[in-house]
Amino acid sequence: MRSVITLTSDFGLCDGYVASMKGVILGINPEVTLVDICHNTSPQNINQASFIIGTTARYFPPDTIHIVVVDPGVGTKRSAIIAKTPFGYFITPDNGSLSYLLQPYLVKPVTSIGPVSIIEAFTPDLNLEVVRITNPRFWRTNASATFHGRDIFAPVAAALSMGERLENFGERVNTIEMLPLPQPNRYSDGALIGNIIHIDNFGNLITNIQSGDIHSNKCLIRVASEIIKGLSRTYADSGGLLAYIGSNGYLEIALRGGSACSLLNAKIGDEVKLTV
Amino acid sequence: MRSVITLTSDFGLCDGYVASMKGVILGINPEVTLVDICHNTSPQNINQASFIIGTTARYFPPDTIHIVVVDPGVGTKRSAIIAKTPFGYFITPDNGSLSYLLQPYLVKPVTSIGPVSIIEAFTPDLNLEVVRITNPRFWRTNASATFHGRDIFAPVAAALSMGERLENFGERVNTIEMLPLPQPNRYSDGALIGNIIHIDNFGNLITNIQSGDIHSNKCLIRVASEIIKGLSRTYADSGGLLAYIGSNGYLEIALRGGSACSLLNAKIGDEVKLTV
Amino acid sequence: MRSVITLTSDFGLCDGYVASMKGVILGINPEVTLVDICHNTSPQNINQASFIIGTTARYFPPDTIHIVVVDPGVGTKRSAIIAKTPFGYFITPDNGSLSYLLQPYLVKPVTSIGPVSIIEAFTPDLNLEVVRITNPRFWRTNASATFHGRDIFAPVAAALSMGERLENFGERVNTIEMLPLPQPNRYSDGALIGNIIHIDNFGNLITNIQSGDIHSNKCLIRVASEIIKGLSRTYADSGGLLAYIGSNGYLEIALRGGSACSLLNAKIGDEVKLTV
Repeated sequence: MRSVITLTSDFGLCDGYVASMKGVILGINPEVTLVDICHNTSPQNINQASFIIGTTARYFPPDTIHIVVVDPGVGTKRSAIIAKTPFGYFITPDNGSLSYLLQPYLVKPVTSIGPVSIIEAFTPDLNLEVVRITNPRFWRTNASATFHGRDIFAPVAAALSMGERLENFGERVNTIEMLPLPQPNRYSDGALIGNIIHIDNFGNLITNIQSGDIHSNKCLIRVASEIIKGLSRTYADSGGLLAYIGSNGYLEIALRGGSACSLLNAKIGDEVKLTV
Repeated sequence: MRSVITLTSDFGLCDGYVASMKGVILGINPEVTLVDICHNTSPQNINQASFIIGTTARYFPPDTIHIVVVDPGVGTKRSAIIAKTPFGYFITPDNGSLSYLLQPYLVKPVTSIGPVSIIEAFTPDLNLEVVRITNPRFWRTNASATFHGRDIFAPVAAALSMGERLENFGERVNTIEMLPLPQPNRYSDGALIGNIIHIDNFGNLITNIQSGDIHSNKCLIRVASEIIKGLSRTYADSGGLLAYIGSNGYLEIALRGGSACSLLNAKIGDEVKLTV
Repeated sequence: MRSVITLTSDFGLCDGYVASMKGVILGINPEVTLVDICHNTSPQNINQASFIIGTTARYFPPDTIHIVVVDPGVGTKRSAIIAKTPFGYFITPDNGSLSYLLQPYLVKPVTSIGPVSIIEAFTPDLNLEVVRITNPRFWRTNASATFHGRDIFAPVAAALSMGERLENFGERVNTIEMLPLPQPNRYSDGALIGNIIHIDNFGNLITNIQSGDIHSNKCLIRVASEIIKGLSRTYADSGGLLAYIGSNGYLEIALRGGSACSLLNAKIGDEVKLTV
């Protein structure tokens, strides 16, 4: 049956792990279109995988099935879930991997790691449904304790892509694990202090300050010991460091023709200050 | 509708950028076959992307649609184009990315960066048609200024793969941007001095001297401080450094069982001298 | 015709080599599903490719066609073969690339590099059939001497996926090249000394000691100067180094939340000792 299944993991591209998952899927649904989102997050980095899937999944058709496996708790009692969202189905350990995706629907920010109530934590337009994957009927027989990607997530995704109904995979649950994502702080003088949450392949610094947080293009942006004056629209608007609203709606800092990360020796978590 | 779309970029494999493009394409044409050519050119390196697409596209079916996005000028007034060629359709910023592909059809070498006349610069058998992408009907709404790959090139490629006619994407243009690719120089004594234009994953050195430039297998090849005597046919023909006509028709230098690049400390642009 | 073709090579992800092969395949069979297994083995490392395909191919549908091209002998008199196995078809230079895949069917371990008799070396349930690729009808015209992946293996795989019969590609042969894979040694006191045969993306150390070699979960595992007591089931069972039977049936050593490889400064070939 025609369907799109994407894969996101920390498995890297030097082993056969990702391909093993694809082989299992194709054995169940040979008509599926497989798309790699990213397999190069640093090992066990749920936060990074959450950012990548959270900023990418929305560009796929809304019936896409996304497998997200950064899974330090594999084989323990951590839950595995299928989450049905307006952006597709997500098959993943219940470990916070959907935090960036679901964040815009939070009633208030999450402040500590752990499960939140689906009904209380999110605005109703999210329409989130979560099922815990407990029915072994769809798993590979003798599923390993260390590679649920291949033995549970892949065959479950393939069965879902064949039209299997959500409730057949396990019981519905009322909570989902969320990470406490760093939030920008607004001060009484109007200054906003955010953080670098991702550094991309170009060395562009993506912050957690969003377009809606910025009320003027004439702001000042401080990062490391540099001050950037005003927002640019394109990389060519400045000869050096520039700040702009990136293609996912976050404030970003780039160096024209170079790497802002290298120039500023920046790292995830570093502060970025916005003043008017 | 069945179609092949390839993707070449400097986006790397550590972000969701490439996958976002694929998601947009699959939302428009779910029957497309997506193939990554390369996403690991160094950032903003149009020349490297041009070499890779120029030596790879010809092996695809001639109705393939190739997206090539190494785009330092994204969001500026640089043009975006669809080029129809005997090797397929190319959707790309008009920044020289097709230079290696089109080079064999040049009437004379290009000597400076900039647009050339399609009618005057190329031999007629190229049958090149170029359309400037100006009709926003096929773009994502509210296209970003920094990610045309996702917001313009991807949906345009998908629409083209659905059978949309070339003229519907924008007006026909008479010029295309070409890079001045380094040409080998022939001296009065018959010696030919070329350059290393690409270094591959094996450390093989690919030069701009082509099979047609070499009139004898008994030539001498000088590179760094080494002299290689004669052309080999396979990597196994020599115990050390060897020179041979590579699978794309260029003179290449390799080290059997090792990296010529590391041994010779070679880099792009280094001279290679051929004497009889 | 619907079919799955996988690709394994040492071509890396920085050139157009892999994509050229895919282009050739799609030109012959546009309905094929292409899956990359791994292109990041170190150059010419047949052993590493053999481990990866040997532990991955079995998860694909049994009519899958696997191309495995780590080919230091390209263009020489080394054979190219199609091997029909219970795990699919393998199209590869005859250079030992199928050693890990076929190892479980060996009557006795192979002790030196070279061809083994298909009838004498393997148990009958393997049902191995091998054809030497000699009929140029399916190759690209003017096949290069340095890129058989693109000019021979790719079009042969595509023709096979279109239903072409095995015997049309060349004559049946009675031998296949096998590598002498390191075997664990059992000592009179019951101790077993094996070796690290693969290190994965997480820094997990995979040994050649298999689940069937271990008779008690209460064993001691010595690696570098460390002693690990007993087998774990999941990564979370220990706060530090742990040993467990991995998802492919091999004894593995991992560091919870870190890299055992970095901690132990381990490398391929290092000894691992198991005592009761």
